[in-house]
Amino acid sequence: MPVQLAPTPDHVPLPTGFRAGGLHCGLKKNQQFDLGLLLADEPVPAAAIYTQNQLVGAHIAVCREHLAKGGGLVRAVLVNARNANCATGQQGIEDARMCCRELAQRLGCPTEQVLMASTGPIGAPLPKDRIITHLDELLARASRDGAMDFARAIMTTDTYPKALYAAGAAHSATGFCKGSGMIHPNMATMLGFLLTDGRIADAAATEALLRRVADRSFHRVTVDGDTSPNDTLFLLASAKGKADGLEATVTDLGQQLARMLAADGEGATRLCTIEVRGARSEAEATHVGRVIATSPLVKTAVAGRDPNWGRILSAAGRAGVAFPAEKARVWVGAADVYSGGKPHPENEPQAHRHLADDTLIVLGVDLAVGDAAADVWTCDFTRDYVQINADYRS
Amino acid sequence: MPVQLAPTPDHVPLPTGFRAGGLHCGLKKNQQFDLGLLLADEPVPAAAIYTQNQLVGAHIAVCREHLAKGGGLVRAVLVNARNANCATGQQGIEDARMCCRELAQRLGCPTEQVLMASTGPIGAPLPKDRIITHLDELLARASRDGAMDFARAIMTTDTYPKALYAAGAAHSATGFCKGSGMIHPNMATMLGFLLTDGRIADAAATEALLRRVADRSFHRVTVDGDTSPNDTLFLLASAKGKADGLEATVTDLGQQLARMLAADGEGATRLCTIEVRGARSEAEATHVGRVIATSPLVKTAVAGRDPNWGRILSAAGRAGVAFPAEKARVWVGAADVYSGGKPHPENEPQAHRHLADDTLIVLGVDLAVGDAAADVWTCDFTRDYVQINADYRS
Repeated sequence: MPVQLAPTPDHVPLPTGFRAGGLHCGLKKNQQFDLGLLLADEPVPAAAIYTQNQLVGAHIAVCREHLAKGGGLVRAVLVNARNANCATGQQGIEDARMCCRELAQRLGCPTEQVLMASTGPIGAPLPKDRIITHLDELLARASRDGAMDFARAIMTTDTYPKALYAAGAAHSATGFCKGSGMIHPNMATMLGFLLTDGRIADAAATEALLRRVADRSFHRVTVDGDTSPNDTLFLLASAKGKADGLEATVTDLGQQLARMLAADGEGATRLCTIEVRGARSEAEATHVGRVIATSPLVKTAVAGRDPNWGRILSAAGRAGVAFPAEKARVWVGAADVYSGGKPHPENEPQAHRHLADDTLIVLGVDLAVGDAAADVWTCDFTRDYVQINADYRS
Repeated sequence: MPVQLAPTPDHVPLPTGFRAGGLHCGLKKNQQFDLGLLLADEPVPAAAIYTQNQLVGAHIAVCREHLAKGGGLVRAVLVNARNANCATGQQGIEDARMCCRELAQRLGCPTEQVLMASTGPIGAPLPKDRIITHLDELLARASRDGAMDFARAIMTTDTYPKALYAAGAAHSATGFCKGSGMIHPNMATMLGFLLTDGRIADAAATEALLRRVADRSFHRVTVDGDTSPNDTLFLLASAKGKADGLEATVTDLGQQLARMLAADGEGATRLCTIEVRGARSEAEATHVGRVIATSPLVKTAVAGRDPNWGRILSAAGRAGVAFPAEKARVWVGAADVYSGGKPHPENEPQAHRHLADDTLIVLGVDLAVGDAAADVWTCDFTRDYVQINADYRS
């Protein structure tokens, strides 16, 4: 059973100035939505950050090109699922450009004000005709009420659509993402979209904000340590509100979305928050958290409901960060399972109950070398993960 | 079914000057051997390399101390399974020292000429009394014919004992190891022992040789990317023969043992050789190979018999090594599945047959940026791996 942090809402609002929509254009089976659109009423400052993989999907080249040419002003983001348009050579780039151009013509804006993102299996040509022939209908459907249609259209192996709305005093933000394997720092088969009516000075400030937000949200989640060639996170700001507190609102939204990604990791039955404390720096704490969060031994222990402090401490110990193991502390939920250089088997029943009874798991380690802290999110590693990935051609 | 590269031999010879033995002292169930001994007829040059984990087993502190104090001369290595003597504090170190001292007294040698290694679950005190009360019997059993008894005594979750003999023109060597999870570069729950009658100048030369051998053998194998606090590799040279070709003999022996570790990885059904070609340096090739070899997506694809070139190329692409994806080449067995910037689905049936029918699998990638190459060994990632590690308290 996947972990769902809250029931899927019937409706998620959009910030002022945005519309969204989705439909079935013929890429997925069973009439499931597979083409989505985010639409700004007028060109708005936007930014994107991309996978660090050497292999990149065609949409990334096109997004880079369009954002540079358009000075970071964007009217629309077109998204298709079930085809990554990756390892498709120059033809793939031309196909993505053509989809953007066709949409821009219908919007009456320059081609560079349209971005695109693709997700799904790699290596097959983009069925661009199916996409283009559905653009008129997609535009007609885009509305203030279309957030959940968009969220459904971008799903691949996700078990539920991921959309959240957050309102601050002077602005609001809506975020979308899709997972659910290959989720890892520096992006993964992860598409994320953050829309806000908060005020951001320009495209450069939008990108700077997006990088800070990602460092504390999407870059702190991992399902299996693998990344994908297509991972992209977008931020669009319609600039109608005030900027006070905007970064906090968007960071919190990003963190909630990141937790949803881990919670819906392939085969997951537990959402794990790895709490690293007592590090020399936040970057060091984050690094140690990532190593623990990618350890198959830690993740299979959670799947087995085993409060295995040894695996947690050992994973921290191979992160390349010096710390005195005899002063470190390890906890599982509220139970102290290792401290003072030795385990506390008397607390393990409590730790076991946490793993067995709760779906939101906390695994913590204090390195005892400083005051910095970071949380990293992951999920347990189950037989179902193997089954899903042995059988699925990604 | 684990992969066994050759039938377990009834007998493995030992190089001149060495004896070996094993017995049941009461740590494992069912009278299985759990205490092993390697014995040199006289003190011989020896070296050891250890886990890079911040958490280290007590035996490592004692080995470092004894090798330093004794100038690298060693008479015996005592090994127990089913207890790692790790996270046992100062008492653990004193327990390991006492075991060495008791054995040294019986051998009539200085305590520092005895080394020890422990493997098994961590956090429990070493049952040193059971070990010490069996030392006389262990010494009595140690013989020129005891190699397989020793190999059995060091097993933990291994499904078969791992011992190999290699003879060069002027020297011979026997190697032992035990796995089988947490196997990764920079050592893992891995104990390895290399004995040779080849001539090595002194302990410093022994250590230098051991590091070169490990870099091309045990440091190129991974089961799950995790390392353990107890990993240690020993080399003892009885110095009765000539040194010509010794490094090649011992390197080959180490590589064969490393392949056995991967082949007997927890839940493994395939031994995978990751061939990295066209890199700028051997170190770069090894690094890319390790990233591919630890990718859960690559390893589950092999478990699913899916020649998934996209996952192989994508794993290489996140290794932090720049290469042009459009010039790279990926192969599975003899089948070219990606080159010239695009996949070759017409060759996938041949690649699938290789994965389905063979147990010794080749996955290759040419980065097209240089002439350097390296092979890395791993296994597939199956539902059984998860089952074993969800249920086993390591």
